[in-house]
Amino acid sequence: MFMHNKRLQYTVRVSEPNPRLACMMMEQFGGADGELAAAMRYFTQGLGEDDMGRKDMLLDIATEELSHLEIIGSIVTMLNKGLKAQLAEGQLKEAELYLMVGSGGASAKEAILFGGGPALCDSAGVPWTASYIDSRGEPTADLRSNIAAEARAKIVYERLIHLTDDPGIKDALGFLMTREIAHQKSFEKALYAIENNFPTGKLPGVERYASMYVNTSQGDGDARGPWNSGDEWDRIDNLDDVMPADQGDGTATVALSAKDQKVAAKLADRTLSDPTSDPTTGADMGAGPGAGRTKNGDMGGTSSIHSPAA
Amino acid sequence: MFMHNKRLQYTVRVSEPNPRLACMMMEQFGGADGELAAAMRYFTQGLGEDDMGRKDMLLDIATEELSHLEIIGSIVTMLNKGLKAQLAEGQLKEAELYLMVGSGGASAKEAILFGGGPALCDSAGVPWTASYIDSRGEPTADLRSNIAAEARAKIVYERLIHLTDDPGIKDALGFLMTREIAHQKSFEKALYAIENNFPTGKLPGVERYASMYVNTSQGDGDARGPWNSGDEWDRIDNLDDVMPADQGDGTATVALSAKDQKVAAKLADRTLSDPTSDPTTGADMGAGPGAGRTKNGDMGGTSSIHSPAA
Amino acid sequence: MFMHNKRLQYTVRVSEPNPRLACMMMEQFGGADGELAAAMRYFTQGLGEDDMGRKDMLLDIATEELSHLEIIGSIVTMLNKGLKAQLAEGQLKEAELYLMVGSGGASAKEAILFGGGPALCDSAGVPWTASYIDSRGEPTADLRSNIAAEARAKIVYERLIHLTDDPGIKDALGFLMTREIAHQKSFEKALYAIENNFPTGKLPGVERYASMYVNTSQGDGDARGPWNSGDEWDRIDNLDDVMPADQGDGTATVALSAKDQKVAAKLADRTLSDPTSDPTTGADMGAGPGAGRTKNGDMGGTSSIHSPAA
Amino acid sequence: MFMHNKRLQYTVRVSEPNPRLACMMMEQFGGADGELAAAMRYFTQGLGEDDMGRKDMLLDIATEELSHLEIIGSIVTMLNKGLKAQLAEGQLKEAELYLMVGSGGASAKEAILFGGGPALCDSAGVPWTASYIDSRGEPTADLRSNIAAEARAKIVYERLIHLTDDPGIKDALGFLMTREIAHQKSFEKALYAIENNFPTGKLPGVERYASMYVNTSQGDGDARGPWNSGDEWDRIDNLDDVMPADQGDGTATVALSAKDQKVAAKLADRTLSDPTSDPTTGADMGAGPGAGRTKNGDMGGTSSIHSPAA
Amino acid sequence: MFMHNKRLQYTVRVSEPNPRLACMMMEQFGGADGELAAAMRYFTQGLGEDDMGRKDMLLDIATEELSHLEIIGSIVTMLNKGLKAQLAEGQLKEAELYLMVGSGGASAKEAILFGGGPALCDSAGVPWTASYIDSRGEPTADLRSNIAAEARAKIVYERLIHLTDDPGIKDALGFLMTREIAHQKSFEKALYAIENNFPTGKLPGVERYASMYVNTSQGDGDARGPWNSGDEWDRIDNLDDVMPADQGDGTATVALSAKDQKVAAKLADRTLSDPTSDPTTGADMGAGPGAGRTKNGDMGGTSSIHSPAA
Amino acid sequence: MFMHNKRLQYTVRVSEPNPRLACMMMEQFGGADGELAAAMRYFTQGLGEDDMGRKDMLLDIATEELSHLEIIGSIVTMLNKGLKAQLAEGQLKEAELYLMVGSGGASAKEAILFGGGPALCDSAGVPWTASYIDSRGEPTADLRSNIAAEARAKIVYERLIHLTDDPGIKDALGFLMTREIAHQKSFEKALYAIENNFPTGKLPGVERYASMYVNTSQGDGDARGPWNSGDEWDRIDNLDDVMPADQGDGTATVALSAKDQKVAAKLADRTLSDPTSDPTTGADMGAGPGAGRTKNGDMGGTSSIHSPAA
Repeated sequence: MFMHNKRLQYTVRVSEPNPRLACMMMEQFGGADGELAAAMRYFTQGLGEDDMGRKDMLLDIATEELSHLEIIGSIVTMLNKGLKAQLAEGQLKEAELYLMVGSGGASAKEAILFGGGPALCDSAGVPWTASYIDSRGEPTADLRSNIAAEARAKIVYERLIHLTDDPGIKDALGFLMTREIAHQKSFEKALYAIENNFPTGKLPGVERYASMYVNTSQGDGDARGPWNSGDEWDRIDNLDDVMPADQGDGTATVALSAKDQKVAAKLADRTLSDPTSDPTTGADMGAGPGAGRTKNGDMGGTSSIHSPAA
Repeated sequence: MFMHNKRLQYTVRVSEPNPRLACMMMEQFGGADGELAAAMRYFTQGLGEDDMGRKDMLLDIATEELSHLEIIGSIVTMLNKGLKAQLAEGQLKEAELYLMVGSGGASAKEAILFGGGPALCDSAGVPWTASYIDSRGEPTADLRSNIAAEARAKIVYERLIHLTDDPGIKDALGFLMTREIAHQKSFEKALYAIENNFPTGKLPGVERYASMYVNTSQGDGDARGPWNSGDEWDRIDNLDDVMPADQGDGTATVALSAKDQKVAAKLADRTLSDPTSDPTTGADMGAGPGAGRTKNGDMGGTSSIHSPAA
Repeated sequence: MFMHNKRLQYTVRVSEPNPRLACMMMEQFGGADGELAAAMRYFTQGLGEDDMGRKDMLLDIATEELSHLEIIGSIVTMLNKGLKAQLAEGQLKEAELYLMVGSGGASAKEAILFGGGPALCDSAGVPWTASYIDSRGEPTADLRSNIAAEARAKIVYERLIHLTDDPGIKDALGFLMTREIAHQKSFEKALYAIENNFPTGKLPGVERYASMYVNTSQGDGDARGPWNSGDEWDRIDNLDDVMPADQGDGTATVALSAKDQKVAAKLADRTLSDPTSDPTTGADMGAGPGAGRTKNGDMGGTSSIHSPAA
Repeated sequence: MFMHNKRLQYTVRVSEPNPRLACMMMEQFGGADGELAAAMRYFTQGLGEDDMGRKDMLLDIATEELSHLEIIGSIVTMLNKGLKAQLAEGQLKEAELYLMVGSGGASAKEAILFGGGPALCDSAGVPWTASYIDSRGEPTADLRSNIAAEARAKIVYERLIHLTDDPGIKDALGFLMTREIAHQKSFEKALYAIENNFPTGKLPGVERYASMYVNTSQGDGDARGPWNSGDEWDRIDNLDDVMPADQGDGTATVALSAKDQKVAAKLADRTLSDPTSDPTTGADMGAGPGAGRTKNGDMGGTSSIHSPAA
Repeated sequence: MFMHNKRLQYTVRVSEPNPRLACMMMEQFGGADGELAAAMRYFTQGLGEDDMGRKDMLLDIATEELSHLEIIGSIVTMLNKGLKAQLAEGQLKEAELYLMVGSGGASAKEAILFGGGPALCDSAGVPWTASYIDSRGEPTADLRSNIAAEARAKIVYERLIHLTDDPGIKDALGFLMTREIAHQKSFEKALYAIENNFPTGKLPGVERYASMYVNTSQGDGDARGPWNSGDEWDRIDNLDDVMPADQGDGTATVALSAKDQKVAAKLADRTLSDPTSDPTTGADMGAGPGAGRTKNGDMGGTSSIHSPAA
Repeated sequence: MFMHNKRLQYTVRVSEPNPRLACMMMEQFGGADGELAAAMRYFTQGLGEDDMGRKDMLLDIATEELSHLEIIGSIVTMLNKGLKAQLAEGQLKEAELYLMVGSGGASAKEAILFGGGPALCDSAGVPWTASYIDSRGEPTADLRSNIAAEARAKIVYERLIHLTDDPGIKDALGFLMTREIAHQKSFEKALYAIENNFPTGKLPGVERYASMYVNTSQGDGDARGPWNSGDEWDRIDNLDDVMPADQGDGTATVALSAKDQKVAAKLADRTLSDPTSDPTTGADMGAGPGAGRTKNGDMGGTSSIHSPAA
């Protein structure tokens, strides 16, 4: 069960309203790596977890992320406070309001739809979606996802810190950013406290494919490193060797019943493409005199596209 | 530039059509951890990457994931082959088609909207979205995200392997699952080939908050482990100590201009809530005689909800 | 700041696992009227609210809704507990797992993607989105939205209660359903504690349009009631009277600069439709002999569509 | 069956093109509380409604909202008329077009993707989604949702009126805003014309939970009002009293079969977290010399984050 | 199986960084008609196609579109290169970064969330979704969809060409735009190489409805053209003639079992609307003294909305 | 302005309730090619169109599609009528309701969330989105999109006709399907009534790229047809010839200012990948004894994945 105290986990002192900065901050309120995503990620994992230690940790951190959601939401609210009142009371002239709102995009939506209240959208005005949450119900995968999520949230806070000079906001963001570092450390410890955590799950994989590195992108820029070379790797530079990897014929087939075969033949026949036809097409009919319809036509020199070379 | 050969990277032998299994397989075609997500994750990272080694690796693996998208899509196509023809030619009776299609959900959509073709939806018929991709343009975050993504994809393949007895599909899925293991290993190597990879980014974090563990979820079930206890952690069990963490007053404030203050006061006045009122409400008016409107009313014993105790 | 205790707000006793029922319960976990929607609706309003009384109420109820999210998530978890273990350990035969999972749709996604953990999706597997939240930063609108949201959540719980005979689940759902009733009552009181709460906002509306009822849907089934008839209404049955309502000419126009006019004329000319042409079209060319191309053609009697009458 | 007349329900006179204002207006065209949402909300309710009076009212208002969609779409079209032609004919210089388009966000999308035509997106360029519609097939819930929806639409129009000085647009918006007031009044009448409209649905709720108010958010700022105090409420300030509310033990349990229990034990064992371990983690390995890896390390004074105190 | 070479299909020379232009270019990277949509549209059709000729063509073009995705993504990357570095290293002042980022919307998201890397979003920051793909598994429909998709992509490139003066970008966009023209031509040929391609599918349609044109929108502006007049059309101007078209009574009915009828009657009774009531409503209670509550009330002359005429 | 008559455009006679069939029908109510998509596609084009003839046609067809939305929605309503009442009154036993609802997916959502009312979702329960609409504000593109949309809608109706034996539903679907054929014909006529309709827009394309066909997918299955061979095509089989097509070096570059270059170098240095390192990774540490960690390890014969062949 959750409880709440109206004091924040970190004091928020904002120097002056700034609706556009508010909009940027929403990235961590309703954005992909924002605090709602973090809280819900750990909360749903915690609910589904049976291991007592991990469950406790997940609920601890989920609860703290809710408190962080409150902090970042409070920053957004403070930054929008002037806009909200001016818009509601309608006492500014159009031009002044315009300046405050910006003239399109997330900032306009923040003002017009949400009236300056903190909305669970990102900095582009895109609503938060649970598609951001990648919990899979397997701790060795989920903990890795959590580690990565904290690493991402950290870097997003870092970018926001670069984007403001307001000392009170910088302070609060510094706290939030640092807590992501701490949470990442906890998840790392929890991952390695599971004895066999790689590979994820139970099935071991087929040995001869587990150390194969396929050099599918070739040409200038090919490189070597510990991720594709050395004793641990069977590096395949000749792509014919894995076309297919199982040494079969590389086709896809299914055994159809006689009934299905018969109907499939009918379908094929009905939609047959005649490779020997030379049909006139709709495009042929619609191509105007200067439209490059014929191969040797002259498109003239008036195109506004630069040609690479005359 | 991409090239393609019509042979698959792994031969696909499907024993018999099965549209419902096809639907499950779509989780790895157009699902959150499916092959399109993988390919696009690494491809967009590769495009944005300047480090020659990582760029090459990302493009190698992105390209291979496209080949995996082709394999899983071919499995879906084979499993749907009978359905597709029967539906297009309309020669089965309603009941037979029904059986084939299932009677709702993703399977119906697969048949009716997509005609049995492989669609970029997941097993519930939800269209793929780039919200699944969590690239952030910072390699120490992105590589962790990639590691996690491979761990997740591995476990999803494992679950699919448990859900079918078709040996040809099991084979192909085993190959695909194993390649996720190999890719995870590559990303791990690449992460640790960056000297200082923790914390992500450039700013170090505020020291005193980086080792703080806040025990926000208390009561029965509280536990200790390396993630919250020991020398590396300042564990806080008394939540008053972090309410707030900065020892301030835990409020959120903003300095408003006189003009904004004045308008904000007008807004507050206009929408004032009168705490001393005792208004009759719409609910009061609409509550029927047996609807529990009054505190001491008798809801009787006919409720179909079980009461916890008589 | 949020805190958590591992005891639930209501004890959950589930009689036996049932993944399909779990799937239905997800409607109130990650669905449109589910507990996350409720919690986030009130939480974001509470953050943006300046009135002390309403702010306190919104945070009280938001926090309680989080505890309800925990209860419904725990029900989902319990219902999936057998599935989760069997799927992870892979010890059931395909047919047994199939039966457990269902064979498509949300239930398959719950199993394959989420491994039986509680996911923030609805009963069809559609991820939760903040599009469900309709807070607008104006209390007289938001409180009405909250009243409606509680009314909706109540009815969804009622339907779920009808769909299960498990007494422990019925009990818990009955508690949750009743709390929606209580919350609706609070929001009603708070709305009517604002003196002038209708119409929403500050602008009064144009008087002669405020009491006009336009009978736009006519024919059999036209009806009268207090919503369109009586002293409070100017009922318009002759639609010509409001075509347009302002007695103008009902067109839309804009004053263009000479420069824009000139370019607009060029555009019109370039894309001119010739109403006197009689073009042969792509459809004409592609229409086969039996395809009903000509107006008087014979489509024969073999169509599988029933004609309404010969 | 629907019919259409090319005259609008209200004459639209726009003073001059303004693509950025067009973008804001889209909030009521393809936005969450826009006219499509309104029309579809009432139309789908009307289709499903059996009560003759309500069905007629819903279809009347749905049809009128379609006419409003046409008005607001015509405003958007007029505001974009210059942009559309200039962009199509490509005769402005880059800088001039830039100025017209804005430089990112919804305005760019409006120009580049939609060519200045009215698109069913909101002011941030987010496509309209039926997630905005909250019809539930129960009139006492749906009418409350409609009342709230009209209240929201009214306030959004009010904000748009504040954002423009164009008298023709202000006029048309004033009409549209006022019609929302009238529609709200109709829905209110229709709600109260149902005798027992509270609580929604059929089940009455469990009496002792229907009047309970749980003060879950405590600390400074706690307040009292008719929504949580007085004779109608059992106010709970001591949260232990509802942890849990049913006086049970507040746990969640399910009765597993012996077979499930055995497998669940295997899963628990395989993913056991060892609370006594002290593992070295990936983060430990990746932490550089200046990265605050150790608890007592010195992060130096060069951080660009302001510390709360020097 | 896919292969990759690090050389692009077209050389990209960008004159200088420009994050806002980058944002616009994203329309063709992760937008509705962008290269990912094109590649995936043809790739999924190719996988499901059995006709050898069409399958080969679809895979050829799908593969080329992936190479185009790489080109447009490289343009985005180059345009963001300065921003990416400055943001990552945090060495610019706030104001300078602001200028670079813009102050809201897609551009802010590009910077803050994606760090300047190419993201699969459109110019408004909306993530790519497979909802953009309209493959239906029937070649005569899919080829028409492909023709339309190429026509759309062509026009979007044309608009982007108008929006930049950078000769290297113009060049590359000109190449990409032209390839859409070529692809449209291929799809046209393939459509007309199917003998009977209209109407789509197998069922011919009911003859008397196939040539009927219903003039549902009447009034000033009614027009005639080959699409609604002439020998091929039965034009219906009197709408009563198609109300309904089948000459029935135009109602919708279903035969209910006795059991269902009985319950439906109970439901109707419970939610009966009383058309003779004259209820006081919530709106009545909440309407303040100056709020136009009564029909003849005086809204005063202080409204900020212009009335059309006194 | 829109008007409505309560008679349908086609009489609907449903033989008996069938909630699962209702769910399938929703594909044409709230699905990608459903009637709302059609109506909104043409309506928004009509609003933005200046050509009188096309505008009239678009509004005619848009209005008719709204009437079709009403027909298909009425079918859904009739099919759900029994379910709706039984669910609302709660008088069936759990098992009976279960049977009616199905046990997951769209059908469950239809019942639980929408109470059997017609919802703007597709057959999988995915909400309708304006992403389905591909209007671009250029008639030669939009008319092609409309032609394709009608072709798609036709085939979806055909599939639904195959899926039911109810004669009344078959009749109504046959009418709706046929109207799509008629509409396609109108759009074809309108496209070819524009003199130069290919290529779309104004810019002609770069001649030498307009007739180039790149054979990017090679190997077994390569085919020839009028879409890639013959006089109109420059067929490129040697991919080196288009790597790149402009004969440049195939790289992407941007000219950076000195200041940007310097910071970019710092970033590169900070995130340098050391290709000569041989780091121990997290995966190395987490790999258990039987997990295939070493290249020559023995994974044993107990894997449940079939190996292709020893």
